[in-house]
Amino acid sequence: MHDSRIPFSQLVAVIASALRGAGASPETAEVLATNCASCERDGALSHGVFRVPGYVASLRSGWADGAATPIVERVGGAFVRVDAANGFSQPALAAAATEIDAVIEDAGVAVVAIRDSHHFSSLWPDLEPFAEKGLVAITMVTGGAAVIPRDAHQKVLGTNPFAFASPVAGRLPLVVDFATSSMSHGDLQLAAKAGRTVPIGTGTGTSGRDTEDPGEILADGGLLPFGGYKGAALSIMVELLASGLTGGSFSYRNDLVFAQHAADGSTAKTGQLLILIDPDRGASGYAERVAEFVGALRNAGMERLPADQRYRVRAEAELGGVPITPAIRELMDTQPCD
Amino acid sequence: MHDSRIPFSQLVAVIASALRGAGASPETAEVLATNCASCERDGALSHGVFRVPGYVASLRSGWADGAATPIVERVGGAFVRVDAANGFSQPALAAAATEIDAVIEDAGVAVVAIRDSHHFSSLWPDLEPFAEKGLVAITMVTGGAAVIPRDAHQKVLGTNPFAFASPVAGRLPLVVDFATSSMSHGDLQLAAKAGRTVPIGTGTGTSGRDTEDPGEILADGGLLPFGGYKGAALSIMVELLASGLTGGSFSYRNDLVFAQHAADGSTAKTGQLLILIDPDRGASGYAERVAEFVGALRNAGMERLPADQRYRVRAEAELGGVPITPAIRELMDTQPCD
Repeated sequence: MHDSRIPFSQLVAVIASALRGAGASPETAEVLATNCASCERDGALSHGVFRVPGYVASLRSGWADGAATPIVERVGGAFVRVDAANGFSQPALAAAATEIDAVIEDAGVAVVAIRDSHHFSSLWPDLEPFAEKGLVAITMVTGGAAVIPRDAHQKVLGTNPFAFASPVAGRLPLVVDFATSSMSHGDLQLAAKAGRTVPIGTGTGTSGRDTEDPGEILADGGLLPFGGYKGAALSIMVELLASGLTGGSFSYRNDLVFAQHAADGSTAKTGQLLILIDPDRGASGYAERVAEFVGALRNAGMERLPADQRYRVRAEAELGGVPITPAIRELMDTQPCD
Repeated sequence: MHDSRIPFSQLVAVIASALRGAGASPETAEVLATNCASCERDGALSHGVFRVPGYVASLRSGWADGAATPIVERVGGAFVRVDAANGFSQPALAAAATEIDAVIEDAGVAVVAIRDSHHFSSLWPDLEPFAEKGLVAITMVTGGAAVIPRDAHQKVLGTNPFAFASPVAGRLPLVVDFATSSMSHGDLQLAAKAGRTVPIGTGTGTSGRDTEDPGEILADGGLLPFGGYKGAALSIMVELLASGLTGGSFSYRNDLVFAQHAADGSTAKTGQLLILIDPDRGASGYAERVAEFVGALRNAGMERLPADQRYRVRAEAELGGVPITPAIRELMDTQPCD
């Protein structure tokens, strides 16, 4: 182990320690730290250790409850409703795991509607385990208001990520995870911090003008949806499903709350929807057919599938440890390694 | 009634007559004609009467079975599997209606996986009735290979439309329906026929070069996905769900079939997936919360919501009839009005 790298398990321990120190229960700290360290390990730095101060601020202020007890209810043969009770979404999903397994066994499908929840990470860590079990999985989550569609003049949508995962016979799952904005809020913040410009079309700035300055987009404007009106439509769908249907807050409401509680923390309290389907109910041999389709994509020239880059970085980290960034160094300097 | 317009019911009758003449059963002809006339009425001309010759060619050659009897099976508390038996998707969905109602009542969710089916229309007509009943609905369908992602060198994806519908308290449903390609195949064909150019980014032509010529895209190249790699990822999801999970054909396979059976007809035999959710299981008052969100969108400047233009054109047609296009005139001249 080169000393510019840290073993994954040690990174989890350092993050968990920081979260416990801010008020998270040991269970919640473990779930969130594993999630956050996984993002860092896989090269998704905008959702990795970079976000620990945000978690800590939310927990310390009590804006998010790190010791919340989620309430899991089955409200139909295929419908699981989870009240995250102002805690984070990932421990709420973990609390529903047994119920979800039972629902899928009975119904072949599970809709999981999580409300009153904070989600401050990528979506792929939520879905990968389901795809590894052979399920097809979709999820989406709302956030704080950050996006101004072309025909609007104020922030009204979150960056509203959408994710999809599927098993593939003989290889790791195919996992898609993208913001319905042109760029994630984390990447925009990283660009601003690094003094980089962003492409025209990323967002609008002062008075709605196009700009390459991420700082101006953050301060005076907003991100644009990806792909024009189609991306905006998809983002609206995410608001309706992850907030409307779950009973969580819409992103635009969070923005109002943020304005009043800016000092309390940076995580958005919204909702998350998951749709899980046993694909073999449709026709047996699903994963094999997907492998055949993946072969067709490769034949057509698509060498790199969604998630492949992540798996490559992960494999390196599994061999040599996770590269220590300044953010990790800072965290290690303030936390005892247990 | 101005004689440049035709009443909706009469348009349905003319189309149904053409479809029966090509071998469709009365039931299938009625379902497809109502669907096709609805697209025409709502101004979605690329999926309206323009497509009747395609239906007729598929039916006449026996490539699609206009008298197919769909087989509906419930294979889990929330999973309905439908074998369209080489018929069209819309009558197969109609055949599953009673089963779907029962499943939603029990489970709060229904996944409907239709396979061995032809879908040659827009998706919104499939979803609108569910949203009118208070359900949230998602659907997607594959087609013939038509799309070449930027990192590929041959057509490997369909135009793979994706649609979403939701009830809104006090108004017509919010319905989103878009091709995951930059443009629908029908609109591309209409542009070529009219001699119009299309924007750079719509598709690639000879040797993969960017082109504004829709004819070149059709003949030598392919459409691009909308929104770059995110649109491509969404299109891949549609392939996995509407073809992989249902047991239908992937779009790239249809292209191979088309090459062998070009004279037989132009409809693609694939599959369709629907996900239907009772949103009030998540939290009561869903439609009211959506109405509140729609109000926020309007406050932010989004005056026109997805589907609003369609509803406006529909309202005009309901008052004055459907405008008679050359395609309708041609059809009327060859069919007795019954």
